[in-house]
Amino acid sequence: MMYGKLTALSGKRGELVAILLEAVQQLEDNEDCYLYIVSISDEDADSVWATELWKDAAAHAASLTDESALALLQRGRPLIAGVSPIRLKALGGKGF
Amino acid sequence: MMYGKLTALSGKRGELVAILLEAVQQLEDNEDCYLYIVSISDEDADSVWATELWKDAAAHAASLTDESALALLQRGRPLIAGVSPIRLKALGGKGF
Repeated sequence: MMYGKLTALSGKRGELVAILLEAVQQLEDNEDCYLYIVSISDEDADSVWATELWKDAAAHAASLTDESALALLQRGRPLIAGVSPIRLKALGGKGF
Repeated sequence: MMYGKLTALSGKRGELVAILLEAVQQLEDNEDCYLYIVSISDEDADSVWATELWKDAAAHAASLTDESALALLQRGRPLIAGVSPIRLKALGGKGF
């Protein structure tokens, strides 16, 4: 489980959200990706949060080598001012 | 979407995790609870993270009035040193 807080350049959050939602569509058929939810916070106009849950770190890494994912990363990177991940270990629960 | 970071009293994380996982079992049949995932972090021995996604705030509030949920809250509260929620708005993605 990972919470990825992306800080967009001022005024670029909407564009970044659109790119992330496009990326998620490509993950629909990826069985190793259990969760990828894009969220925003009313308390912080520039941040976008990706809540991710993958089968394992290798599955996540492999997804980043995919050509279309790389193209989206290329488009998104110039919009990002900072990235702060919170890496967690999911122990159990509902929905995954 | 909410990330609830619970800081357990020193040495009490395991007990708190067990209570949260017990609480989640009671949510299996709650259709308004889309996600409730209990996680820990290797970087912080006392924190437990609840990743929650509910139909709406009212559904979440209603779940806390349930008798068995209240009993679990009663058991968990003495183990908790601090609570810091991150409230988000889920825009889209995979898995909910």
